Amino acid sequence: MASRSVLRVLGVDPGLTRCGVGVVDVAADRSATLVHVGVIRSDAHAPIEQRLALIAAGIRSVIDTHRPHVVAVERVFAQHNTHSVMGTAQASGVALLIAGESGLPAATHTPTEIKAAITGYGAADKRQVQQMVARILRLDAVPQPADAADALAIALCHAWRGEGTTSPGAAPRTASMTPAQRAWAGAERAARR
Amino acid sequence: MASRSVLRVLGVDPGLTRCGVGVVDVAADRSATLVHVGVIRSDAHAPIEQRLALIAAGIRSVIDTHRPHVVAVERVFAQHNTHSVMGTAQASGVALLIAGESGLPAATHTPTEIKAAITGYGAADKRQVQQMVARILRLDAVPQPADAADALAIALCHAWRGEGTTSPGAAPRTASMTPAQRAWAGAERAARR
Repeated sequence: MASRSVLRVLGVDPGLTRCGVGVVDVAADRSATLVHVGVIRSDAHAPIEQRLALIAAGIRSVIDTHRPHVVAVERVFAQHNTHSVMGTAQASGVALLIAGESGLPAATHTPTEIKAAITGYGAADKRQVQQMVARILRLDAVPQPADAADALAIALCHAWRGEGTTSPGAAPRTASMTPAQRAWAGAERAARR
Repeated sequence: MASRSVLRVLGVDPGLTRCGVGVVDVAADRSATLVHVGVIRSDAHAPIEQRLALIAAGIRSVIDTHRPHVVAVERVFAQHNTHSVMGTAQASGVALLIAGESGLPAATHTPTEIKAAITGYGAADKRQVQQMVARILRLDAVPQPADAADALAIALCHAWRGEGTTSPGAAPRTASMTPAQRAWAGAERAARR
C-alpha cells in the first residue's frame, strides 16, 4: 500500500468490452503521479457471467498489486434503454462489489463532476479531459485506449473532489484556485523544470 | 447438488434493498418442487459497496447450500432514468458474476417471458404470477415478500423455457400444451391426491 502521505486511488471506467482501470498517487499538495493504467477486455461473444468474472478478476488483480486506499467508479446513467447501458451498470456493480469485498471504501462520480474536476469545465469534451490527464500526470501522450485515460480522470477527480456523490454532506472546498487550475499550474511548473 | 434427473434452478429477482432468491427442482415431466426461498436485504443507508458485498455473500451462501445447476436472473430494463434501476442493474451484475465465479451457467429472462411462462399470458399482473407460483409448487400461500415469489417465478420460467434470452437459437418447444397449462394440470392432479 502507498504511504499515507499520499492518497492512492483506483479509478474504474466501467464497461463490459473495455473496462478502464487507472491508479494514481495524489500528494497533499495535489500533485499526482501515475502508478498503473490499463484496460480489462472481455469477448462480446462470451456469456455475460464469464465476462463479469473476468472483469472482477482483473480489478482484484489491480487491487492486490497496487493496494489503493479507495476505489472511484464513474456513475452510470440510463439515458437510453440500450443493452450497453445495462452492461455498463452491471460492470460498475462488479467494480463496487470488489471494493467492498476488499474492505475498501468506494465512491461514484458523474461525468460532469469528472470533467469539471479535471478541466474546470463540466461540459468539456472527452479529448480535452484526456489531454489534461496526460499533462497532469506528465505523460508524453494520452494513454490508449480512451477508457484507460478516462479511468485516470476518474481517479484524479476523486482525489481532488473528495468523497464523491454518495456523500452529499462532504465539506466544500474553499481554496481560491480550482483543482484544475492548481493542476495546470503544477503541470506547467513541472514542464519548465 | 440435486440429482441429474431433475434440474435445480436458482432464480434471482435482483434488487439492492430486497434481492429475492428462490431454488426449485424441476423434473423431466416439468413438475416442480420448492427447495429454498428467501430474500437478501441490505440497508438503504449503507454504502453501495457494502450493500453489494452483502448481496454477493447471500447469493454465494444459497449456491453453496443448495448447489443449483444454473442461475436465472430477471433482465433489467432502463425504462426510466432512476437511481433504483441502476441499483437493480448493479445487483443483477453481482448475481451473474457469482454464477460465473461458481462455474455455473447463467441466463436472463424478461418480465414478459416470465409472466408468459408461468401464466401463459405475457401481460399477466404480478399477483396472478405469484398465485400461480404458489399453486405450481403446492404451497399453502404466496411466499412473502413479493420478491421471494418473483425469484421462484424466474427459476420456474427458466426450467420450462430452457436457455433464456441469451441463447436465441434454442430449439422451440413443440408440445401441444403450454408449460403453464401443463403446470396447471399437474397442480390440479396434486391437489386431488
